[in-house]
Amino acid sequence: MLHAIIMAGGSGTRFWPRSRRHRPKQLLRLAGESTMLQQTVARVEHLVPPDRVFIITGEDQAEATREQLPELPARNIVAEPAPRDTAPCVALAAALVAARDPEGTMIVMPADHVIEPVDAFRTSLRVATEVVDADPSALVTFGITPNRPETGYGYIERGDLVETRQGVRAYRVRQFREKPDRPTAERFLAAGTFLWNSGIFVWRAATILEAIAEYRPALAAAFEPIRRALGTPDESRVLAEHFPQLERVPIDRAVMEHAPNIRVLEVPYNWNDVGDWRALATLVDRDTDGNAIQGHVVARDTRDSILISDDDGIVATLGVDDLVVVHSGKATLVARKDRLDDLKALVEALASAGYGAHL
Amino acid sequence: MLHAIIMAGGSGTRFWPRSRRHRPKQLLRLAGESTMLQQTVARVEHLVPPDRVFIITGEDQAEATREQLPELPARNIVAEPAPRDTAPCVALAAALVAARDPEGTMIVMPADHVIEPVDAFRTSLRVATEVVDADPSALVTFGITPNRPETGYGYIERGDLVETRQGVRAYRVRQFREKPDRPTAERFLAAGTFLWNSGIFVWRAATILEAIAEYRPALAAAFEPIRRALGTPDESRVLAEHFPQLERVPIDRAVMEHAPNIRVLEVPYNWNDVGDWRALATLVDRDTDGNAIQGHVVARDTRDSILISDDDGIVATLGVDDLVVVHSGKATLVARKDRLDDLKALVEALASAGYGAHL
Repeated sequence: MLHAIIMAGGSGTRFWPRSRRHRPKQLLRLAGESTMLQQTVARVEHLVPPDRVFIITGEDQAEATREQLPELPARNIVAEPAPRDTAPCVALAAALVAARDPEGTMIVMPADHVIEPVDAFRTSLRVATEVVDADPSALVTFGITPNRPETGYGYIERGDLVETRQGVRAYRVRQFREKPDRPTAERFLAAGTFLWNSGIFVWRAATILEAIAEYRPALAAAFEPIRRALGTPDESRVLAEHFPQLERVPIDRAVMEHAPNIRVLEVPYNWNDVGDWRALATLVDRDTDGNAIQGHVVARDTRDSILISDDDGIVATLGVDDLVVVHSGKATLVARKDRLDDLKALVEALASAGYGAHL
Repeated sequence: MLHAIIMAGGSGTRFWPRSRRHRPKQLLRLAGESTMLQQTVARVEHLVPPDRVFIITGEDQAEATREQLPELPARNIVAEPAPRDTAPCVALAAALVAARDPEGTMIVMPADHVIEPVDAFRTSLRVATEVVDADPSALVTFGITPNRPETGYGYIERGDLVETRQGVRAYRVRQFREKPDRPTAERFLAAGTFLWNSGIFVWRAATILEAIAEYRPALAAAFEPIRRALGTPDESRVLAEHFPQLERVPIDRAVMEHAPNIRVLEVPYNWNDVGDWRALATLVDRDTDGNAIQGHVVARDTRDSILISDDDGIVATLGVDDLVVVHSGKATLVARKDRLDDLKALVEALASAGYGAHL
């Protein structure tokens, strides 16, 4: 049977001050009427029934996550005792699925992406499950056709074409590449064989557990006590004791870069991991002065800025360019757009200055 | 006897969003622990007892004004039915004083100035009352020795020295000058005979009423029904009916530019009419990056900016220069410092956009 695993951790630094420790990106209505998490669940609702949708989140966000998803069984919302990147998260999810359904297939996807149109996404998921049904040893990932030399994403170079299903081509993988510099990204775009690494996967639970055991044996061994405790009265205690000790490593590096039987589906939909306020700005309409605006904003002689206020607040600007201005609750951020990469450091400075209550 | 009249009208546009329609500049703690109005009252407390201190304010602000000054008799806080500039305000105040004390002397001063040191200010007030006691026909004003070619203030050119009391020189006035352009302001500074027009006055109530009658007879005639109604049961009705019809004119233009017996005292104290956020910035300490900061602010790679948050809010900035950022309640202003002269237009745009509740 098909299961969906939504990875909904994340601290939300990059959307401060709208995002907070207890309200990270995926719990926000950043783009649209529902939150990114709700949109992610809705994206699979025709493919997977609610009792087979699992959310892996952090303890700080578990309560808000349950509130946002009342249609899901409460036990399907699982809190990691500590964030350990995606490989331990995937291991936990796969063990949960395998315990219920030893031959179960799972979709793994982050809770904080924007994907449109959703029909094309669902088609690609159906194709991926067909690939896995036909070859249970396959690990399927999704590569987005790039339309610009983006330096903020990882890339997958596709290899030989294996098959085409429902118009979607499945390739072998030649290599995974970390975020490139600009000349490299331009070369990737020109080559036509590099795809954005979406971080979305489809595989059998048993297969990914075997792959972790093969390519990251220490992680698999350290995880083993947790796997055995699942469903027992000891589950919570063992999880709290062992999970924070697991190696902090992404599933790409732990498994995908090593396993032979990877398939990358080249998919045509618009995909955006909404990494920071600039990415959000690409999702909303611009005014004639190039400003991306959300909420109540009056902008006078203001250009190329991202201007955001919460429902009940207001932002007024006068004679400024290339800024990000966010008024959220009791906090205001004003940053040059090209300095947003330092927002994490600013948030750390706020914590150091004793303003943890605003984070 | 000596009376103090504090002119506390004003709409507060120039300090939006901290100032609001019901909370204009003088009711704010812009600089220091108490509000500008409270500081203004405190400045005369050793010279004038509370029952001879009058506040002339607007109807929107009367309640907040009474709350801020519980030591004053409630009847001493008088609300103008409509703002008509300073000449009608002075006429009303002078009539109130004269009705109680026909030979009374009055200090007239705006509620929204910063003056330091206060001892020097009090000395100058004592000198002014001596001048008026010696010559009841004198109209005394105060000229501040300029220390820069300020284009935001009016000027008074002093004439012949008349006398010196307690080290304070009293001059005749050669001319009043409106706000100059920059070259003219530089010439005024170089000449050494031009003083900033403080808008503070000392005179007999009877004398200023006579001067208004002589130099602005139409205003005096239109005011006459109000004067006769003061202290009668008709006072409120007559004030509401006639005051809004009075000519909107400043006392300088109505009287001071015409009357012969003006004395200007050249006074050495620091005086600032705190015209907008830039003027406020001159009153607070700067950090090493040239930022003027009030409230909870974390500024990173930020220079020469004015950064202000209310008690319970926070402002965080990253990589910006020469901005004014004010987070107050549910509103945030972000403006280039050199565009603050357009803040009034921005506030009007907010009103037009339906955000009157934030004004």
